[in-house]
Amino acid sequence: MSFSFEVIKTQGRARAGVIHTSHGDIPTPVFAPVGTQATVKAVTPQTLRELDASLILANTYHLHLRPGDDLIRDLGGLHRFMAWPGPILTDSGGFQVFSLTQINKIDEDGVTFRSHIDGSKHRFTPEVSIKIQQNLGADIIMCFDQCPTPTDRGAVEAAVTRTSNWAIRCREAHPCDDQQALFGIVQGGIYEDLRAQSAAFLQGIDFPGYAIGGLAVGESKADMYKTLDFTLPVLPVDKPRYLMGVGEADDLAEAIMRGVDVFDCVMPTRVARHGAALTLDGRINMRNLEHARDENPLDAGCTCYSCQNFSRAYIRHLMKAKEILGCMLLSIHNVHFLIQHVQSMRAAILNGDLEDYTRAFLQRYLQAAASN
Amino acid sequence: MSFSFEVIKTQGRARAGVIHTSHGDIPTPVFAPVGTQATVKAVTPQTLRELDASLILANTYHLHLRPGDDLIRDLGGLHRFMAWPGPILTDSGGFQVFSLTQINKIDEDGVTFRSHIDGSKHRFTPEVSIKIQQNLGADIIMCFDQCPTPTDRGAVEAAVTRTSNWAIRCREAHPCDDQQALFGIVQGGIYEDLRAQSAAFLQGIDFPGYAIGGLAVGESKADMYKTLDFTLPVLPVDKPRYLMGVGEADDLAEAIMRGVDVFDCVMPTRVARHGAALTLDGRINMRNLEHARDENPLDAGCTCYSCQNFSRAYIRHLMKAKEILGCMLLSIHNVHFLIQHVQSMRAAILNGDLEDYTRAFLQRYLQAAASN
Repeated sequence: MSFSFEVIKTQGRARAGVIHTSHGDIPTPVFAPVGTQATVKAVTPQTLRELDASLILANTYHLHLRPGDDLIRDLGGLHRFMAWPGPILTDSGGFQVFSLTQINKIDEDGVTFRSHIDGSKHRFTPEVSIKIQQNLGADIIMCFDQCPTPTDRGAVEAAVTRTSNWAIRCREAHPCDDQQALFGIVQGGIYEDLRAQSAAFLQGIDFPGYAIGGLAVGESKADMYKTLDFTLPVLPVDKPRYLMGVGEADDLAEAIMRGVDVFDCVMPTRVARHGAALTLDGRINMRNLEHARDENPLDAGCTCYSCQNFSRAYIRHLMKAKEILGCMLLSIHNVHFLIQHVQSMRAAILNGDLEDYTRAFLQRYLQAAASN
Repeated sequence: MSFSFEVIKTQGRARAGVIHTSHGDIPTPVFAPVGTQATVKAVTPQTLRELDASLILANTYHLHLRPGDDLIRDLGGLHRFMAWPGPILTDSGGFQVFSLTQINKIDEDGVTFRSHIDGSKHRFTPEVSIKIQQNLGADIIMCFDQCPTPTDRGAVEAAVTRTSNWAIRCREAHPCDDQQALFGIVQGGIYEDLRAQSAAFLQGIDFPGYAIGGLAVGESKADMYKTLDFTLPVLPVDKPRYLMGVGEADDLAEAIMRGVDVFDCVMPTRVARHGAALTLDGRINMRNLEHARDENPLDAGCTCYSCQNFSRAYIRHLMKAKEILGCMLLSIHNVHFLIQHVQSMRAAILNGDLEDYTRAFLQRYLQAAASN
């Protein structure tokens, strides 16, 4: 089946829907774990299936540099390479060439940068980014964009213009969405007029989905929510909306309430490697002494493998002893927590009790965060 | 069910049997993966079950130092702590206090040493080792012994005497084998008379199983096999025999042919973390460039999760990119390889074709090793 999207039910501005892809359906809202280097860190694809992941993200920048997108193409594409049969989304590399490289230079045509791995020189243009993403073969691919500091109006204006021009070139390089759907990325920082300008321009090109880029990069939560308040209404209702790089549970709730459908974030697996467990009562540092003799699971009531089988005391021991299994169990739990959180909100939309659910969730979560 | 052992069938000196424990049956011969710090590194207990592991080993020395055997006892014992419901064997700590600590001092009563973790001072005696193992609650526990350089006759003589004296004290500290079976450890290095002396002395005490210690610690393979040739005949036929710390596939084959029932080794998971895959054609370094575009699995015909789903190219990518999943997949494969290898030899004993099977295995394995 080629790419399509349907909204099943709405409540307020929130939507429950389904994205159809040739590798399976993605019920939305959806949280996508990130497999930067073609693996969600410390989690097997089999376990991702058991966690009910329906979409994962992989990174164009990393996979181009290592092992190479040509190699992945020759071995049958990313799904086969990483043994993940479900839907995949790849980013454009636009964010990483600025955030991960020490030396980079942007011009109207593209970005020249040096690899963070070996210092070798590379150049990404819209056409190069699309070609790499075609080689990788993900179900959803992204336009090459520029992500500026969201509160620097001059920089944001330039980035919107550049992102618009590059969006035209990406569409020309990838005119058909049947096997790989090309999403546009709305920039504009925290500025309502610039977000509207960017969104209108991209809709003129006509994409099968729209991402909101340039958020969760240092601005305040209030700024992020306000930006979502005025950005989502200028996006088409019949296309999926993807808020890039956002994964904090309260942000997911706020964004879903405002009409976002798709999320990704490295956070759940990254903080797992540092010993943190995500719970309805906020983040817990499992390295703390208070857990040394605690027989309870990470999160009471959680149904994940880690919580069904292991105590906080055991997981603390694993982290203190630098055992890989500690990262594995915390990654399983944290990915499960965010997937379940978003699935619960989807169920609440379908049941018509989203507002009550979200209010109760946020009250507990934010109260705990404030007291932590 | 309390501890017992039965031999089901013999072929030559090799035996197929079953060890019964209160946590389940252990078909023998058996290879036990090692969970030094209460986790088989990078493998979940669920996966160990899927790999058909029927016995795992944990280390008294490590668990006493961290998180503490009293903590594990208070949390319900090692089975519950690490969520492994099957049989567990703990060693005595005698080997580690010498191999892992920089500062240690032995006397007739025990060993004083400093922790490799924080330099803190500790003392192990036979009674302390037994007490720790009782706190941990494994199904099979070991006498506190001294493991000398096997080719230094003077040192070996002293170690045999000391190990004998300590075996009496261990038996007195643990008189009942119903819930935890206490095995004696035969020392004697490469010397036939000393092995016979040690074995005879221990049988006078009467243990429910006997380990052969002090091998695979630097002596030649020829010396190891010769030592097994004269040590196994002086052990009782109706008790399990455990060759400590041996895990190379050819050594397992040679030892099973000579009548060994139980093995353990950290090797499969240790070499996995360094990128090595165990195969019927010897060890493969997955970091090598030759695997960069290889679509084949680690080992043709292998039925493990790693080989059923992933290419050598992918696993090489994971190792080059320092991804945890690389260690996880190689650990799964390597543990599977050794468990299957020993299970195949057990099946061959039951089928009566052990000699043909072993000859074919060794021919292929050693030929490959010679050409690697």
